Amino acid sequence: MIVVSGGYQTKFGELWDKSLKDLIIEAGEGAIKDAKVKKSKIDLVIVGNKLAGKIGGQEHLGSLAIDCLGIRVPGIRVEAACSSGGLAIHQAVLAIKAKQVETVLVIGVEKMTDKGNGEIAEALMGAASEEERRVGLSFVGLYALMARVYMEKFGVTKKDLAKVAVKNHKNALKNNKAHFQKEIDINMVLKASMVAEPLGLFDCSPISDGAAGVVISKGSKGVEIVASEIASDSLGLSRRKSLIELEATQVAVKKAYLTSRINPRLNRGRPDMVDLAEVHDCFTIGEILALEDLGLAKKGEGYKGVKIPINTSGGLKACGHPVGATGVKQIVEIYKQLNGKAGKRQVKNAKIGLTHNVGGTGGTAVVHILRRQ
Amino acid sequence: MIVVSGGYQTKFGELWDKSLKDLIIEAGEGAIKDAKVKKSKIDLVIVGNKLAGKIGGQEHLGSLAIDCLGIRVPGIRVEAACSSGGLAIHQAVLAIKAKQVETVLVIGVEKMTDKGNGEIAEALMGAASEEERRVGLSFVGLYALMARVYMEKFGVTKKDLAKVAVKNHKNALKNNKAHFQKEIDINMVLKASMVAEPLGLFDCSPISDGAAGVVISKGSKGVEIVASEIASDSLGLSRRKSLIELEATQVAVKKAYLTSRINPRLNRGRPDMVDLAEVHDCFTIGEILALEDLGLAKKGEGYKGVKIPINTSGGLKACGHPVGATGVKQIVEIYKQLNGKAGKRQVKNAKIGLTHNVGGTGGTAVVHILRRQ
Repeated sequence: MIVVSGGYQTKFGELWDKSLKDLIIEAGEGAIKDAKVKKSKIDLVIVGNKLAGKIGGQEHLGSLAIDCLGIRVPGIRVEAACSSGGLAIHQAVLAIKAKQVETVLVIGVEKMTDKGNGEIAEALMGAASEEERRVGLSFVGLYALMARVYMEKFGVTKKDLAKVAVKNHKNALKNNKAHFQKEIDINMVLKASMVAEPLGLFDCSPISDGAAGVVISKGSKGVEIVASEIASDSLGLSRRKSLIELEATQVAVKKAYLTSRINPRLNRGRPDMVDLAEVHDCFTIGEILALEDLGLAKKGEGYKGVKIPINTSGGLKACGHPVGATGVKQIVEIYKQLNGKAGKRQVKNAKIGLTHNVGGTGGTAVVHILRRQ
Repeated sequence: MIVVSGGYQTKFGELWDKSLKDLIIEAGEGAIKDAKVKKSKIDLVIVGNKLAGKIGGQEHLGSLAIDCLGIRVPGIRVEAACSSGGLAIHQAVLAIKAKQVETVLVIGVEKMTDKGNGEIAEALMGAASEEERRVGLSFVGLYALMARVYMEKFGVTKKDLAKVAVKNHKNALKNNKAHFQKEIDINMVLKASMVAEPLGLFDCSPISDGAAGVVISKGSKGVEIVASEIASDSLGLSRRKSLIELEATQVAVKKAYLTSRINPRLNRGRPDMVDLAEVHDCFTIGEILALEDLGLAKKGEGYKGVKIPINTSGGLKACGHPVGATGVKQIVEIYKQLNGKAGKRQVKNAKIGLTHNVGGTGGTAVVHILRRQ
């Protein structure tokens, strides 16, 4: 079987004293140490990253990573916008399944705060379609369109969205690696500066620096990866069937539930249902749609929340969102939870965890299901 | 077994009337048509690209590609600088080996001429190390350093380098998809403007737009991929053991010869030796080093050339070098040659072909060996 045998997350935040290389080294070395594996056992390094070329002028991160970690094995980079980290995990699972390698180090990394917010906002739109860029839409603008349709259709209010942010900030209080460790309340969210109506400042995940690493290997110890699925959809919102469903999420999770024989919709209340999940809450509306698309909540009811813990790390919203790192960080969080290593935020008796990582506004979705042995 | 069942190359050159999307569509549809496969049979689309984010503001090309081709399957992007195309082929082989999919469409694409040469030269340095960028080195400057060491060590002249360019321009005369279809002679190469001593204008591959596509599948028909190997080395030249050897090439080809049980060094003259190769001649010195590192020529003798046809497509030098497309174009060329579809430039009785794609100055190398059945 394929297992996560170690995981590490750097502090997420405005890390002006850390370079891209520093973050890669810290996440890579941290994951290797946690996995108690020798460097010489690593067969392949996969880096998930979106913006290092655009923002930092540095492509070719596979070679960079093996070089600065001192590991002379193949190193590659994969990119699928904000789901680059999830894709990197998926490719690692694939390489082991293909019997090409036995142990893979996956690093998700992003350095975003060295540039001004305007430049970053423009760079992030590389995850969206040309048409969307041309009309001047921003990323929050795109999610705002989705939020408005959702709110109108289901009679949902800004207060309902705000609850997601409040919960995730509360979760992050127990995570010292989080970008924000600051409690907020509904009023603060509602009174915050408007970014793109109806999404205010606290409805948005921040621009963060950070990295995360995991060691994935063929083995019998560790937390098993029971499903690793990816699906794609059109880049732009105008070509989607629905503005309030991410079909890529639905397709990926359906495959993941089939592969892992875990289906919360069918098995609610049974011990083999999902115990906790890290979902892609780049904006508050994102978490709500995710809960529905993942089958954890009924359509139109995701805003009410669910019974299982969601985004114990603080999510993208409060833990931070260094885009290429996020999908790997989600795996680190679930790995820690299932391994009983989540410290103050430990979910009791967690056996099965799910991660959900989205690229763009749903052009890509990557879903992983992990199980404690 | 895993086979190339179809391949297509767009015209390479300054394609100001073609967008990135146009090129993806032409290469994708072209490969699918050539493979005589239905679109519904494609299980996965992999895009190799380096610069679309940096130059065009467009990342997330996996989603873009499946969208503009109208194929609703997972689409991903991989990047390893100028070997992004070779890496994409390698990942396709992996996905089939892992039994995840049966048929993969691989597209290599790059749109480079929309920006000025200065901006492109700077963007290309994303494949090199931060230290190399900081001291103001250009890509041709890096290869010039390698050329100078080689020339001094082996008593090689600019005329010897020039012969590579003359040969590849001559080859390209028979390839109507080539960026240049113009015969040159030694004197023209020697008298051309100096770019970075000792490399003049005609020692350098051009800045090109273009795309190539191949369909790779599990099957019994087509040209078999008998080896697909990748190796990495340090990003910067200063951390290499030698300036006149690409260790990544040596490691990748050694694995490829072992996997395929083909070793030209041991088998020279026997029917199972390599019949032709497409090698990474981004600069004339690149082809010379490649011949040696691939074991096709002895160390210090690569400048004399070899008996088998090298770069029948015209190579990067004359066919052009849209960086993400190059590794895929090499596969298209060998596929056509082994399939007897290479037209005016057909190599008679070609049975085994090799491709060699380099990222940066050797931070990554990808080697494929293909065999006609």
